[in-house]
Amino acid sequence: MSRTPDARARDTQTKQIQENITGVEKHFGDLCQLFAAYVRKTARLRDKADLLVKEINLYADTETPNLKCGLKNFADQLAKIQDYRQAEVERLEVKVIEPLKAYGNIVKTKREDLKQTQIARNREAKQMQQLEKMRQRNPSDRQIISQAESELQRATMDATRTTRQLEETIDDFEKQKIRDIKKILGEFVTVEMAFHAKSLEIYTTAYQHIQNVDEEGDLEVFRNSLHPPDYQSRLEIVRANSKLSLNRTGTSMSKSGTMQSRTSSRQRKRDDEEDEDEEEDDEDEDDLEEVTDDEH
Amino acid sequence: MSRTPDARARDTQTKQIQENITGVEKHFGDLCQLFAAYVRKTARLRDKADLLVKEINLYADTETPNLKCGLKNFADQLAKIQDYRQAEVERLEVKVIEPLKAYGNIVKTKREDLKQTQIARNREAKQMQQLEKMRQRNPSDRQIISQAESELQRATMDATRTTRQLEETIDDFEKQKIRDIKKILGEFVTVEMAFHAKSLEIYTTAYQHIQNVDEEGDLEVFRNSLHPPDYQSRLEIVRANSKLSLNRTGTSMSKSGTMQSRTSSRQRKRDDEEDEDEEEDDEDEDDLEEVTDDEH
Repeated sequence: MSRTPDARARDTQTKQIQENITGVEKHFGDLCQLFAAYVRKTARLRDKADLLVKEINLYADTETPNLKCGLKNFADQLAKIQDYRQAEVERLEVKVIEPLKAYGNIVKTKREDLKQTQIARNREAKQMQQLEKMRQRNPSDRQIISQAESELQRATMDATRTTRQLEETIDDFEKQKIRDIKKILGEFVTVEMAFHAKSLEIYTTAYQHIQNVDEEGDLEVFRNSLHPPDYQSRLEIVRANSKLSLNRTGTSMSKSGTMQSRTSSRQRKRDDEEDEDEEEDDEDEDDLEEVTDDEH
Repeated sequence: MSRTPDARARDTQTKQIQENITGVEKHFGDLCQLFAAYVRKTARLRDKADLLVKEINLYADTETPNLKCGLKNFADQLAKIQDYRQAEVERLEVKVIEPLKAYGNIVKTKREDLKQTQIARNREAKQMQQLEKMRQRNPSDRQIISQAESELQRATMDATRTTRQLEETIDDFEKQKIRDIKKILGEFVTVEMAFHAKSLEIYTTAYQHIQNVDEEGDLEVFRNSLHPPDYQSRLEIVRANSKLSLNRTGTSMSKSGTMQSRTSSRQRKRDDEEDEDEEEDDEDEDDLEEVTDDEH
């Protein structure tokens, strides 16, 4: 009965090692998949930001000079952040996903170690049964019993050796696992922090580019483009509203008619800004009345 | 002919306003959609990180005390970052997406303003044709001509008033647009920067939690759990490898046999770490030989 506690201990130990290996396989596998999903979503975010950069550039091309310049610079900074996001993605793949993925093979190796130990233990148990049989059948045949004893001795040696080997390998495995998970999560944080720090830096520049846009300068450009040089003399021209211009007006009307039909499909109700406009209108009418009075 | 340059200018202006409105509609619409896509991907990234937090907690529950505690604290920090990512998502929706979306209605209002101006101008042109007709058919009927003239005058007043009104509204629109895009992009940067700054701060704590995990303490716990109290006396027990234990060994064997069949489906070749193990094995065998020699 003296070997019983040891056999029990071995079983418990084997079960624990088995559970330990299975646990690492499961959790490192799940972590690997979830980090990979996180990295994939980061790459998708980068893709969307790249489209934003493209669109901001397209929009900038339609804008007045200062805003155009500000938008282009802003887009450049946003693009730079996506380059760092790409670096983040690549670094996470190398420093987090790959080491976690490697545990798939490491775990297989440990299972094989465990299996070798099991085989040696089974052989020992078989030899023990063998010896018992010999002793029962040929209790007096010293030679056969001695041979069985020496075979059991070899099997026990082998079982003990592989068990000790397994203990060492599992101890190393555990040590390495703790170090690796610390290293992997540490690398994750380091890569993420590098990205966040760079983003902060670049957004600071981006912010300045967009806030420094000179609105007044652009409004001047806009007004000049909208109001041709003769704009200021319009009222004088209205005053001279002569009969001679009828042919040209006909042409002008047909043109604006085309415009109108183009807009009509999109026409919608005006909102309540209308009230304010109304007040200004009254002043305008007064001005016009004076102008038209001159004609009479 | 004196009204011709003005009519041409009006057409050019109308076209420009039209293009301006269409451009803003298109680009603000596209920007809105792309920022919305960016926000959606950010939310997806938050989801994946949430799953990571969950898995790290599950894994922590299977680990030795120090690592368990480190992992739990790490997971808490990672969860905190996702709370800030959620705040980022919500703030981007309010400060970026909504204001851009609002331009859909603003643009509709401007189109309506443009349409009102077109209608007034067409009425004016029609009145001008009317007056010309009167003059040709009844050149001497002062009363009819005078009436047509006064109707034209009203139409001209109205066209001039709505045109000026449109110019003002478009000027305001342009001014507001530049301010809004500066504000919206500024808000985008501010929200993003707040998130990056918070992440940096929290990751710093997360890093410490994981790096401070005491490996040696955990290894001690692991070794104690794997090696029952009677472990150190194992070799002595092996020495006393008696015939009395055969029944218990039989039970032990059948148990380990079940284990083996569970592992066999996953068995793989061992890698080249084997060489190193081999050397250590020799030493073990020497030890064992001594132990078993004692028996004889």
